[in-house]
Order: sequence, then C-alpha cells, then structure tokens
Amino acid sequence: MHPPSYQCHESRSDHTVVPPEKIRIPEDQLDYSHEPTWDQSNLLVHCDKPFNAEPSLPALINAGEITPTEIFFKRNHGPIPDISQIQHRVYIGLQDGERHQGINWQSLSMNDIMTRWPKVTVTATLQCAGNRRDGLAAVKEVKGVIWKSAAVSTAIWSGAQLCDILNDVAGISAEHHNKMIRDYHVCFEANDHVHEDVCYGSSIPLRKAMDPMGDVILAYEMNGKPLTREHGFPIRVIVPGYIGARSVKYLQKIVIQPQESTSFFQRRDYKILDPTIDHTNVEESWDTAASLTEMNVQCVICTPTENEVIPSTEAVTIKGYAISGGGRSIYRVEVSVDSGKTWEPASKLVQNPEVHSGMYWTWAIWEKTVSKIPHSTEIIARAYDSSGNTQPEHAIWNYRGVMNNAWFRTRVMQVPNNRM
Amino acid sequence: MHPPSYQCHESRSDHTVVPPEKIRIPEDQLDYSHEPTWDQSNLLVHCDKPFNAEPSLPALINAGEITPTEIFFKRNHGPIPDISQIQHRVYIGLQDGERHQGINWQSLSMNDIMTRWPKVTVTATLQCAGNRRDGLAAVKEVKGVIWKSAAVSTAIWSGAQLCDILNDVAGISAEHHNKMIRDYHVCFEANDHVHEDVCYGSSIPLRKAMDPMGDVILAYEMNGKPLTREHGFPIRVIVPGYIGARSVKYLQKIVIQPQESTSFFQRRDYKILDPTIDHTNVEESWDTAASLTEMNVQCVICTPTENEVIPSTEAVTIKGYAISGGGRSIYRVEVSVDSGKTWEPASKLVQNPEVHSGMYWTWAIWEKTVSKIPHSTEIIARAYDSSGNTQPEHAIWNYRGVMNNAWFRTRVMQVPNNRM
Repeated sequence: MHPPSYQCHESRSDHTVVPPEKIRIPEDQLDYSHEPTWDQSNLLVHCDKPFNAEPSLPALINAGEITPTEIFFKRNHGPIPDISQIQHRVYIGLQDGERHQGINWQSLSMNDIMTRWPKVTVTATLQCAGNRRDGLAAVKEVKGVIWKSAAVSTAIWSGAQLCDILNDVAGISAEHHNKMIRDYHVCFEANDHVHEDVCYGSSIPLRKAMDPMGDVILAYEMNGKPLTREHGFPIRVIVPGYIGARSVKYLQKIVIQPQESTSFFQRRDYKILDPTIDHTNVEESWDTAASLTEMNVQCVICTPTENEVIPSTEAVTIKGYAISGGGRSIYRVEVSVDSGKTWEPASKLVQNPEVHSGMYWTWAIWEKTVSKIPHSTEIIARAYDSSGNTQPEHAIWNYRGVMNNAWFRTRVMQVPNNRM
Repeated sequence: MHPPSYQCHESRSDHTVVPPEKIRIPEDQLDYSHEPTWDQSNLLVHCDKPFNAEPSLPALINAGEITPTEIFFKRNHGPIPDISQIQHRVYIGLQDGERHQGINWQSLSMNDIMTRWPKVTVTATLQCAGNRRDGLAAVKEVKGVIWKSAAVSTAIWSGAQLCDILNDVAGISAEHHNKMIRDYHVCFEANDHVHEDVCYGSSIPLRKAMDPMGDVILAYEMNGKPLTREHGFPIRVIVPGYIGARSVKYLQKIVIQPQESTSFFQRRDYKILDPTIDHTNVEESWDTAASLTEMNVQCVICTPTENEVIPSTEAVTIKGYAISGGGRSIYRVEVSVDSGKTWEPASKLVQNPEVHSGMYWTWAIWEKTVSKIPHSTEIIARAYDSSGNTQPEHAIWNYRGVMNNAWFRTRVMQVPNNRM
C-alpha cells in the first residue's frame, strides 16, 4: 500500500524530489485488506483495526531481557503499510521558516542508509505511554486503547545513527551551545494512513537526536532480522528512553524545524492533561500541555498474576520488570506483602547499560522470593530510579490515560496444598 | 587556613608540582577560630560548627527566582577555609591506574582559570539532598542535619566551563562513543578540613562533566560578585541538576579516574539506603547502594506557613517552588485543599531554561489562589516533571534521610476576620 503520489516522485533525481503529498483518509475508508497475519495465541488483542495487542505478563517475563519479536507488543494507529524496500525513500529537510517552505529536500534510499553509515546496535525497551491505562480507566473514563501492563517490550535494534545522518545530509553539528541544538525539533512522518491526520507523525527535540549519548537510530533490523511489517518495515526510528510514540515506524520523512511536529499525535495526544480536564473541556487544553518525551519510573509484577492461587506451604517467587526514562537506571525495587506497611528490596535485579553510551535504555528484570504471605493479600511493588524518583501510591487520573506509574498491586490467594 | 604542606609546593614549577598531602584532623581539633560572620537574623541556624543554616520559607519565596547571597542556604562540613586567591591553585590529573600513581599533575592559578577560558554564566538552583529531612526524621531517627524545606536556593554562577578545562589541560574530548566518557568519573577535592576524611570530596560521571548541554562550571562568581567564603571562595564546582553535594566548594584538586571518588562523602553518605537499613546494619550496605546524582521531583509550599491563621473572608494565595533534576522542567504543580481528593493546577508557574543549553537548572516559582478553604485544613502540593515523574504521597524513610519528596503539606487555620 503506497501513498497515491509516491511512485511519480520516485523517478526524480535526489536534488529535485519532494516528498509525496499526503491526504487524510476517513476512518471508514482506511484499507485493512492487506494486514499481515500473526499467531495470536500468545497475545491479548485489544483491537483488530488498527491492530493493537500485548503479550501476557508471564509470557513477557519468562522470555527474559529480550522479547521475541512475535510477542513484542504491537501498537498501530491505522492499516499496516506494505512497503517496497527497494522503492522506499526517506526524505530529509531542514526548515527555518514556514512549514514546507524553503526546504531543500534530500532523499535516501534504503540502500543508501544501509551502506553509507555503519550499522550500530542499540538494545532498548519501548513502552507505550498508555501502558497500564486500565488502572486509570478504573478511576474514570479515559480515551485510548485500554492497555494492561504489557504494552512494553525490549528488542535489539540495528541501523544507522540519526546524528550521523543529520550531520552528513543536513549539516547539523552537535557543537557546544549551538542555538539550533537548543531550540529545534526533529519531526518524523510515517508512510502510512491514519484517520486522525494525513499520516502518523511525531517529533523529538534536536538535542536528543544529536546527543552523542542519546543512541537515537534509524533501525532496519529487530532482534537480528529485518523489521517485520508491524514493527515498522522497512525502517523506523528508535528513540531510547522516550515514550514509544516517538519511535515512528515506516519512516518516510524527517524535518528539522524550530517547532515540534504539528501532527495530531504530537499536539493532540500523548500529553498528561491535568485531572480537571475531561471530554467536556479538552480542546482548549492541548496547546498549553507539554508533549511527553522521557518515560517516568515504572514497576510491574509479572508473576504471580492477579488472583493466582498459591500453595501456602511454598515460598513464592515474585518476578517483574522496572524501567525509567532518559537512560536512568533502576536503583532499587521494593516489594510489600502487608499493604505497604513494610517493604523488602528485590533480591535480584538485572539491568544492562548500553555498551556504547553506558545509558540504561532497557528495563530491569527483578525477582524476590517471600516465604510468608498472608492468607490472601495484595503484593505491591515499587521502584526507584537513579534520580531518586519513585512512584505514587495511587493512580493519578488524566483524560488520555497516559504515564500511569502507581504502585503495582497483584492480589493473590494462598491456600493449603491439599486444597489445590 | 592552608593545609600544612601547601606553601612548600607552591614554589615549584607547574610540571613538577604535586598537590599538597592532606591529613585528617579529629573533630575536636578542627579550628573554627576564623569563621566569617553573618547577619543571622534571616536564617534558621541548625548548627554553628560546622555552620549550617537555611532561610525561612517566606524569605526564600519573597526573594523571587534568584536568592540573595546572604540568605542562600549555607551547608558546611567543617571550618570555612580562609584561602588566598593569589596563592590558590587547582591541581588537575588524569589517573588510569591506582590512586595517586602515574598522575602527571598540572596546576592552574586562579588567574589562569579567569583568563585562559571565557567566563560563562549559568543560573542554577542548588538543593541539599537532605532538604526536607525533617519529614523523614518524623518517621524514625535519621543521621544528618535536620533540614526543613529551605535547604535550596538559586544563584547566578559565573566561571569557566569544566569541559573546556578538561579538554585543554587533560586532553579529554567529548567524542562520540568514547569509552572514557562512558566509564570515568571526575573527582573533586576541597582545600578544607573535615573530620570524616582528609577533606571534603565528591565526584560526578565524566559524561556529565563533558556533556555540551551539562553546563558544569568552575565558578568564581555568585550573583555577580566574587564567591563569598562560605559559598566556596575562591572557586567551586557548580553541577546543575545534581544534588548540592556534588558542587564542591574551595576546589583544590580534580582527578579524572575510572572509579568514583573514594571520599567519605561519595561512598559513605548521600545514598538512599533501603528502608530496612539503620544504624545497626548500615556498614555492610554502603558499597552496594548507588551514589546520588540528579535530584528527584520536588515541590514545597512556602506561604502560607505551617499553622498560619488566615482570615476566612479572603482568598488565599499559595506560593511555592518546585524543581526536578537533570535539566527536567516542571510540567505542572497541583494544589489540594481537601486532603488530596481533588486537585487544581497552579495558575502561575515560572521557570526559565538556561540560555545556552535550554536545560532547566532552576526551580519553578508557582502560585495558586484559592477562595474556599475549609475552616482548618491541610494544603497539599505536588509537582510533575517533564519526564512524567511525580511525588509519593507519604515520606519513604531512609537512614540518611535524603531525597524526601513526599507531597508537601501545610496546615492552616481559617478564622473569621473579626477574630484575628
């Protein structure tokens, strides 16, 4: 599925091409007839069109640090495009004035991107800002897919470094106290169709893109293989440490400009609105709320699962993940089996820094074995990150249901062995 | 007050000098006879020797964004040294092996530092990691000065950029994927005497020191004037976004090495120990706990003050500060006058990014006017930072009483005007 005007631009030379014009397609006219198919047995499917699904928490944690591509959570806003790697081009432009004016576009083929710059590998966890939205939906109605707690996964991504490409193609340098680095944004657009806008789009501060320790890449491989269609084939952005929404898939266009992206997904979504804002007054609030960038500190118990029955004679091993944003490591995970009165640190906590940069872009996998659990109790877990941030006790509702990082609670029932 | 062996090294040439050897002085032999004097009327003095004091919250907030030097909180670990600017030297060495071996020392005079590198200005808030320790002391005994909520202040600092000096003097470059940048630390030692170690010392990751957006400076001016003695004369480190303990005063020595500083203040202090650790088992815990770097998200109500009586016929304007670490901005401040059931966003929130880097190194000053406060109530405030982090509802105790960022509560009493 290519945008209608795509092919005709393909034959122009690099110096005169402009990116294809895009049109917004109404929701009921989006074409879902070319969706890929998956084994859905290991997925909780929230929605078919667009396809949104997450694995079970036990499947996620049992897979370990790296999530197999098959169960990596799948987040889409429209039909999954079917793009020709040979024909696909990424258009890059620097804009100083009005949108789409005065941009001297350059374009790169996939072959350019794969051969002109070294292939680098970054292991990074992606987490949807809506992960754990179910906890906010329980407070009051929210807008969005009601994700449970597995809209988060970790993969090994390989591709070209965005800072190298922006330097070589657009002449952007990371020099000290560069006003452009301080003020500009890098906007990404996907070669797809969604009903909210002409395509999926988003942006990140140019500072993040050019940070030598930022590890932002344009990835064409996931877990050692070419990207699968639903994870962004043939190329996607990976923005480690940021909410998943910024890691734009099916990347077609990069614009460096003084403002953040004007996309619906940057300006009318992925913001924490204050708790007094709901569907009645949301429109006037978007422009004054900040766009989300880095993740907050998060911690989830994966096993045992909610309402699991546990033999009372056996110790229970509690396992989960914890993650923070911005490359911050997980400092400590604590578990309580007495409703938060006392806490014990997790006995095992594994989190690996990125080899090149030393930043913590992946989750920490943790476990804690407890021998005495009251007959029926809530197990609670919370984490601290390397900036000393920790999580709020209760969910703090917001209209878009994003960034819920309240203490994670799992109710378990412990019964004598002979009753199991 | 100079270290005993200081003068004899002073006369050597730059290429052969080594920093003065230091000796640890017992607590009862520390010489407090040359302390500067201050107007203490605007300060709450916690301790005279060493001198530790904070302003009142109304004085702090009424001074506005920049705290006058006189009421800037004062934090010392020993006698305040009386250093000659002309004789003072800063020794810089790169160490690859064992401590103090194989270091090719170079030294800089104050004149060198003030003339060889451009003077840059960074406005930054410093906050003691022990700010609001009183809230943790109320839970259980803690170690340290029992700071209230004003061990935080903001000043305009001017000096030389540390990254420039490390580049020019020690040949450290910020190049991409440099293993030294990833793994090394920059250790600072003060020209002072404390009883816990030979001098005050601390370190930061080399990554922070070399970050073009990190704004770490060696400051010799505060609020447009030479540093006062108690704020680090003649030169101190300013590490924006980090806990105050890393902004070492009376800077005498800089060592770039593969490990963090071995100083007491890096290894046996300024760590969040888990809540199961107290004075009975603390010794075995220090080495496994991480050293604090960036601040967490914090919010304090400065006026009205605790137990203030307010006329019930008038609206009340609540004012305070909020701050986060790592250059993260304050996203929103919320106020509740019904014990946390409902929250209203602050109506005014001013926070200025650093001009050069665009990072948020200073606090946000906020206010909120409420017309209806119950007869007697707690006003509660909490903040969100740009990473979506917010504060825990209740204080989470730790032995050193650091990084308390629980919701801030101020009890006020509202009475009819005619009873005031």
